[in-house]
Amino acid sequence: MNERFTLPAHSPALAALVPEFLDLARAASGDPAAEERDLAVWENLTEHVSLDYRFANPPVHGPGDWDTYDSRFVDPAGVEIGTLQGTGRILYERSSDAHLMMYYREQLTFPDGTAQTAGWVDGTAILGGAWQRFPILGSGGRYGSMIGLRSFQPTPEAPHSLYRTHLVLREIPGGHGLTDPEEIDAALSLLGAFVGPSVNPATGNGRLEPPVRAGRTA
Amino acid sequence: MNERFTLPAHSPALAALVPEFLDLARAASGDPAAEERDLAVWENLTEHVSLDYRFANPPVHGPGDWDTYDSRFVDPAGVEIGTLQGTGRILYERSSDAHLMMYYREQLTFPDGTAQTAGWVDGTAILGGAWQRFPILGSGGRYGSMIGLRSFQPTPEAPHSLYRTHLVLREIPGGHGLTDPEEIDAALSLLGAFVGPSVNPATGNGRLEPPVRAGRTA
Repeated sequence: MNERFTLPAHSPALAALVPEFLDLARAASGDPAAEERDLAVWENLTEHVSLDYRFANPPVHGPGDWDTYDSRFVDPAGVEIGTLQGTGRILYERSSDAHLMMYYREQLTFPDGTAQTAGWVDGTAILGGAWQRFPILGSGGRYGSMIGLRSFQPTPEAPHSLYRTHLVLREIPGGHGLTDPEEIDAALSLLGAFVGPSVNPATGNGRLEPPVRAGRTA
Repeated sequence: MNERFTLPAHSPALAALVPEFLDLARAASGDPAAEERDLAVWENLTEHVSLDYRFANPPVHGPGDWDTYDSRFVDPAGVEIGTLQGTGRILYERSSDAHLMMYYREQLTFPDGTAQTAGWVDGTAILGGAWQRFPILGSGGRYGSMIGLRSFQPTPEAPHSLYRTHLVLREIPGGHGLTDPEEIDAALSLLGAFVGPSVNPATGNGRLEPPVRAGRTA
């Protein structure tokens, strides 16, 4: 055999993230007193979202729409624990069910460090109030050696400006070691496969043709 | 902490695939004599592709195009070793560089078993002749307990009907254990993060707005 099947050089570093991410999730459902690593957990945050949304064909949501937004995370005691800058775009409609598939990128800023997310959102599900989840990769300060999970759900009373949000980040011994933008992208894709929606599942007829609904925005 | 951060139940099975996939790649660049597991390697195959391509706006390739295709894999000795049925669709243009992002699903049939792939292709890169790679998940017969890698490159002389292709599959002790379509999708997404293109990398201005070129197909 030969080197043509060799994977990218950063693959071992990416692979090492997987058990860490799963262990984090297990720890998050267990006893925090047993935790020996630096851990940041914020639950039941109120996320105040200031959204700048651009319709391609108003007023109907569809491919071509994109947005930027600024969020403030406020804990149940009313304390602002951090902020977020994000951007997203509706990229396409899934072949099987015409769900609107969105891609997001976010920068998180805390008083003591920074982090980032990227990932897919099922835009049809989120408009219906479903929880969405992104992996988090720490980028600086206390969070520079951490990975984590961001979960958020639009509130029924203000789906575009108020989310219910959980954040958890946990230290990886020795840090995640990822600094190159391509490596960071690959890591977020990898971990997103555990918590994100299916990007284009099989259709009933076995063909990935555009959904009928896609004609709407043509 | 609480159960709100719990990952899907199949996450441990998915995670177990990662070191197997990396080990496979390492083995593929080493000495085949040292291999103790069942291994299938085909290199330098000629893939004869019978393509049925549907343009949304002919003759320009763009979002909305989709296709189905039947391939025959022929080894360097001229022996047909298997066939493939595939379908793909151009889903969107990346925000940063307007590359055409395609999603594929494929069923592979060999005389002694079956397998499947799914994954992203950078359609702009492949039109330029770049190698593309999908993870493979075995589904039946000899390959039912295997995972692998498919690499293919259009030939300059017949980019739509002749590919140069490598296939490698290797047994996982105990099998991969994935039968649910959602689990299989997640596994292919997970492994695809190691070998696939970046789905929507960051832009220069930090906003995921549609690329200027996207207006072409509006």
